[in-house]
Amino acid sequence: MNNIQEFLPYILKHENISRIEDKTLLIGDRRSYPFEKKFYKAENVFEAASAIKNMVTQGGGPLEVALNSLVLIAKQNGKCEKAFKEGVTALINSRPTNTTMARELKCVLPTIINSFECDNFVSKVEEIVNNRLDYYDSCYDKMSDIGSHLINDEDGILTTCFPEHSFFLSLYKARLANKRFCVFAPETRPYLQGARLTSSSLSLMGFDHYLITDNMVGTFMREGKINKYMTAADLALKDLTVVNKIGTFQNAVVAATFNIPYYAFAISFDQTKKDFNDIVIEYRDSEEVKNFRGVKTTLDSVNAIYPCFDIIPSKYVSGVITPDKLFLNGEKR
Amino acid sequence: MNNIQEFLPYILKHENISRIEDKTLLIGDRRSYPFEKKFYKAENVFEAASAIKNMVTQGGGPLEVALNSLVLIAKQNGKCEKAFKEGVTALINSRPTNTTMARELKCVLPTIINSFECDNFVSKVEEIVNNRLDYYDSCYDKMSDIGSHLINDEDGILTTCFPEHSFFLSLYKARLANKRFCVFAPETRPYLQGARLTSSSLSLMGFDHYLITDNMVGTFMREGKINKYMTAADLALKDLTVVNKIGTFQNAVVAATFNIPYYAFAISFDQTKKDFNDIVIEYRDSEEVKNFRGVKTTLDSVNAIYPCFDIIPSKYVSGVITPDKLFLNGEKR
Repeated sequence: MNNIQEFLPYILKHENISRIEDKTLLIGDRRSYPFEKKFYKAENVFEAASAIKNMVTQGGGPLEVALNSLVLIAKQNGKCEKAFKEGVTALINSRPTNTTMARELKCVLPTIINSFECDNFVSKVEEIVNNRLDYYDSCYDKMSDIGSHLINDEDGILTTCFPEHSFFLSLYKARLANKRFCVFAPETRPYLQGARLTSSSLSLMGFDHYLITDNMVGTFMREGKINKYMTAADLALKDLTVVNKIGTFQNAVVAATFNIPYYAFAISFDQTKKDFNDIVIEYRDSEEVKNFRGVKTTLDSVNAIYPCFDIIPSKYVSGVITPDKLFLNGEKR
Repeated sequence: MNNIQEFLPYILKHENISRIEDKTLLIGDRRSYPFEKKFYKAENVFEAASAIKNMVTQGGGPLEVALNSLVLIAKQNGKCEKAFKEGVTALINSRPTNTTMARELKCVLPTIINSFECDNFVSKVEEIVNNRLDYYDSCYDKMSDIGSHLINDEDGILTTCFPEHSFFLSLYKARLANKRFCVFAPETRPYLQGARLTSSSLSLMGFDHYLITDNMVGTFMREGKINKYMTAADLALKDLTVVNKIGTFQNAVVAATFNIPYYAFAISFDQTKKDFNDIVIEYRDSEEVKNFRGVKTTLDSVNAIYPCFDIIPSKYVSGVITPDKLFLNGEKR
C-alpha cells in the first residue's frame, strides 16, 4: 500500500497518536477513548515520559511519542547533547517491558547528535523522525501482508488488548480479499484496552466482532467459534518467546489445548536479551485492579496485585510475524 | 460444627441472604455489596423470582430465597395449591442453569401440599423450610470437612466467582488446623462477584488473599504461586461434568496444563441429566458486558455476547466434593 494511514482506525493515525503544535507535544489520550477524543499536552520530554508511564498512550504509541519528543527537544533545547541524553533516558525508563522504543532511541540518537553540524537543525531532526515514522509504517504494511494471508475465510480470530497497526491492516487486507471473519476482543482488564480501543475500532471500521469479558475465551474455543489467535507483542525474542499484555499467556495456553495457532506481530526481535530470564516485567499499582474507570470494585481493605505483562514461552507461540518474514516455531533458523 | 452460621461471612448468613418480615421477603442485594448492605423487598413470590432473574442474589442464594418464598406464599395465600404451583414454576424458571433450587422445590412441594391438613399451616411450612435450611447447613459443614482436608500448608488456592459456604468454611477449618494458605480471587467480570463478594469476604475474615483480574490466572500458575483450584458448582453431573460461572472452564484448562487439581463443591448430582448435552446454558443481556455498575466500557455500536455459565467436561475436573464423599475422577463408581 502506498499510504497505510488512511486505512487505520482513528487512534492509530499519526496525528492522533502524537503531534507537535508550537512547542507542545500533544499525545492522544487512550485512557479516555472512545468516550472523549482528548489530547494530553506535554510541555517537555519529561512530561511526555510521565504520560507514557501513566498510560496516556500504550502499545505502539510510546514509540511515536518518543520520536516526536526528539523534535520537541530540538525545538526547546537546540544542539544540546545533554538535553537529548537526559530526555532519551527518561523516555526509556518510562516503559521497562516494551523495548522497541528504547532500541529505536538508542539507534537514532547518534544520528541526531551527528546532525549538530547542520544549519537548519530542527528541520533536520524533523526529517530524521519522519523517515523513521515512514519506516515503521512500511513495517506495518509488510507485517499485515503476512498477517492477512494467515486469515482464512470463516475464521474466528481472538486477539488480546489493543493489537495495533499490523493487526487492523491485516483485517483490512483480508476483507479486500473477500474473506469473511469475526474478531473476538476480550475487554482486557484492568485498563479495558480491548473494550475501549479494540472493539470500538472494530465497530467503527465495520468488522464483524464480539466484545467478550476476559474469562470467556476458553468457552468460545471449546465451542469451535475461535480458531486463530493473533496479538501484538510488546517484546519478542529470537527464540520466539513473546511478551505482551497480561492475559496473553493464558489465552495461548488454552489455544494450545485446542490446537489453535497463536501468531504475534513484532517489528523486530530484541537481540539484547538471551532468554526470558532477561525480561523485566512491569508491575503497576494494584489499586488499578480495584477500580473500573474510577469506580471501586471492592473494599479498600482488599489486597490486589497487578503484573502488567505476560511472558509467553515459545512452546505456546506458533509463529512471530516480522516485516521480513513469518518465523514459524520449529523452523530451522 | 454445631452451628456453621457464626463462621460464615456476612453475605452468607441466613438473615442476610433472605428473611421474611411481616408479609415481605427481604433479599440481600448482592449487586451492591460490599458498598451498601441493601435488601430488595419482594412483596410476593413473583417479585422474588424476578429478583433472582435480575441477579439480586446468585449462587447458593436463590435456594434460600425459594424456600423462604414458600413461607411467603403460605402467609399470603394459605392452603392454595394453585398459588404454590404457580409460585414454584416462576422460581424454577428464574434460573435455568443452576438446578439445585428447582430440585429442592420439586421435592418439598408435595410435603407442603400434604400439610394442608394441618391446623397451623403457616407454622408447619415454616418448620418444613427451617428443616431444609438446617439440612443444607449440615451439607455445607460436611463438604467443608472434606474441602479443608484438601487444603495443604502453604497452598495457593485459586477460586472463581463467589465460591459460597463450603469454600469459606473449608478455609476456616484449614486455618483452625494451623494451615497457612493464600487465596487468589479473580474479579469475575461482568458482575465482579470475585471482587465484590469473594475478595471482600476474604478480607473481612482475615484470610491471606489477592484480588486479581480474570486474565492473570495463567500467569500465577506459571509462576507456581497457585497450586490448587476450588470453586462452587451451579450444577454437577454424576460423570463429574461441572457447570459454573463463566471463566471456570478456561481456568480449569490452564490448571490441567500445569497439573493443578481442580475440585468443585456440589450438594448433589443432577440425576435428571445424562450428559452435558442436556445442560441449558443461560445467556444474559450482552449490555452487561459493555457496562460495570452503570459505567460504559465502550461505544454503543459495539457487539457483545454474554454466555453466563461454563460447562467443564469431566476430563478437567479432579474431583467433586459432595456432603457424603469426595468423588475423584477416574475412581470406579
